[in-house]
Amino acid sequence: MDIDDLRTRILAGERRALARAITLVESGRADHRADALRLLESLKGHGREALRVGLSGTPGVGKSTFIEAFGLMLTAQGLKVAVLAVDPSSARSGGSILGDKTRMERLSRDKGAFIRPSPSQSQLGGVARRTREAIDLCEAAGFDVVLIETVGVGQSETMVAEMSDLFLLLLAPAGGDELQGVKRGIMEMADILLVNKADGELKRQAIRTCADYAGALRLLRKRPQDPEGFPKALPVSALEEEGLQKAWDEMTALADWRRAEGHFAARRAAQARFWFEAEVRDRLLARLAREPLKGAMKTMAGQVENGEISPSAAAEELLRTHLMLE
Amino acid sequence: MDIDDLRTRILAGERRALARAITLVESGRADHRADALRLLESLKGHGREALRVGLSGTPGVGKSTFIEAFGLMLTAQGLKVAVLAVDPSSARSGGSILGDKTRMERLSRDKGAFIRPSPSQSQLGGVARRTREAIDLCEAAGFDVVLIETVGVGQSETMVAEMSDLFLLLLAPAGGDELQGVKRGIMEMADILLVNKADGELKRQAIRTCADYAGALRLLRKRPQDPEGFPKALPVSALEEEGLQKAWDEMTALADWRRAEGHFAARRAAQARFWFEAEVRDRLLARLAREPLKGAMKTMAGQVENGEISPSAAAEELLRTHLMLE
Repeated sequence: MDIDDLRTRILAGERRALARAITLVESGRADHRADALRLLESLKGHGREALRVGLSGTPGVGKSTFIEAFGLMLTAQGLKVAVLAVDPSSARSGGSILGDKTRMERLSRDKGAFIRPSPSQSQLGGVARRTREAIDLCEAAGFDVVLIETVGVGQSETMVAEMSDLFLLLLAPAGGDELQGVKRGIMEMADILLVNKADGELKRQAIRTCADYAGALRLLRKRPQDPEGFPKALPVSALEEEGLQKAWDEMTALADWRRAEGHFAARRAAQARFWFEAEVRDRLLARLAREPLKGAMKTMAGQVENGEISPSAAAEELLRTHLMLE
Repeated sequence: MDIDDLRTRILAGERRALARAITLVESGRADHRADALRLLESLKGHGREALRVGLSGTPGVGKSTFIEAFGLMLTAQGLKVAVLAVDPSSARSGGSILGDKTRMERLSRDKGAFIRPSPSQSQLGGVARRTREAIDLCEAAGFDVVLIETVGVGQSETMVAEMSDLFLLLLAPAGGDELQGVKRGIMEMADILLVNKADGELKRQAIRTCADYAGALRLLRKRPQDPEGFPKALPVSALEEEGLQKAWDEMTALADWRRAEGHFAARRAAQARFWFEAEVRDRLLARLAREPLKGAMKTMAGQVENGEISPSAAAEELLRTHLMLE
């Protein structure tokens, strides 16, 4: 593969080159992996900085409608918008609920937008690495905004928040004063809560829900990376395209403040550390499933099953003999 | 520490020696750890086999009352009963809800019984190893039945099921025909479901709930380690001490069948393998937090934060340089 050519075309913002590069980083083949690493290395130092926006919301909250309306608003302002999806459910089912471009038909035809469905991977760890690399590629290709979309399932929200400059939660209007069981941990990760469907019959309810969330947010411990008034809860209507500019203004204001205060770079640095440590753990464990450790594990497991050696002693022996640890 | 003396006294069934040995295996000190391993090694080949019974049930289901009534019934039959507790909540809070011997006052005064509260450990992995070792010690001390109790929280049920010959779920009578949201995975681990509180006003409801569970169990895939009719759902009343003998008869019948068919030994072998593999993973990851890897991780994380090297490349480099992997 001509990596130099691919590099040049990505830096020129060529959509097809970007799509091909993402396919490359998603591949599990060893030679593709080597090419992908060469490509990523060669793209370093491009000096471009996209705003990476993580967005989570449960199915039914109007995520696709929101992304389409929000994305079209941004492209109309001349911004280039990439949309990546992280869908943990597709890992198991094989079929991705987020994979369908027809979900965001208008945005997918927009020349300022690039939509990439979720890779169907079996491991969340693998999805994380590939998504991070896809973000880097989009950034190199000159996209101004990279939206990383996920559903609120398991660890995927934490994962997306750990690759975003800003993390948004899209919520539906709640009945009465009950907040929708948003987990405290998720709430604490969010920079902006958007209560969607602030239109028609639900408008009042959405505004009330917004006030409830705003109250809940005030109870949280203030984070150093937030200026006065953040995190915020805002009503939006993806359907009527209301509140989207206001949401974008708040996002850029927050990003600008964080850049000025050094929090923006600090967050990216902390994220890089987080992913480094996660990769060390993942790769270390992955080695257990590969030779020569795989064979050694199997032999020793046989002795453990026969009662020749205890699980603890066997584990210690394995690490000492095969990894020269302790 | 005089390990030989401790060994002799444990084999003689001395309760104080057993308690001291469990304290030893629970200790985090390196010299205690070495003593503990020597002791466990020296106890091998005692030829005794306890019936290890895992028991899970959410708070309020009457677990303590059940264990006390059930334990007293067994000791009255001349059996020696040990009760160990695994309480994941105590790891965080420090205070163990299961630690209080006054919970089972009569049983704790019984000479045929030995009750040990949950160790307050910070890691479930550590709790697992210590509990497995405590089970081994109880078995060596000649206990006929080792009850391992846990609350239905997180991974603790799987952990206890993986150290038990039989795994029981204690449940409360459910309203209507709704089963109490018992997770399918937990249901599939259970050998016998016991619906408690089959007394007074709740008796009818308990019997109905039992029938509902029996129906649900019939829908599960038949497991090779089960004779006809298992897993089973039975009503019990810990309060009125009803159904306990029947439950014990079913337990021993199941254990006898499994022994005769080879499933009993096969399960213990598979469990030993499971714990061996878990220990390898745990210990491998634990090394990352210790020198020399800890220092190497820190240095490299600094370079990752500065953007000198990507998280993936840094992880690969670390494993290659410091663990000689790949």
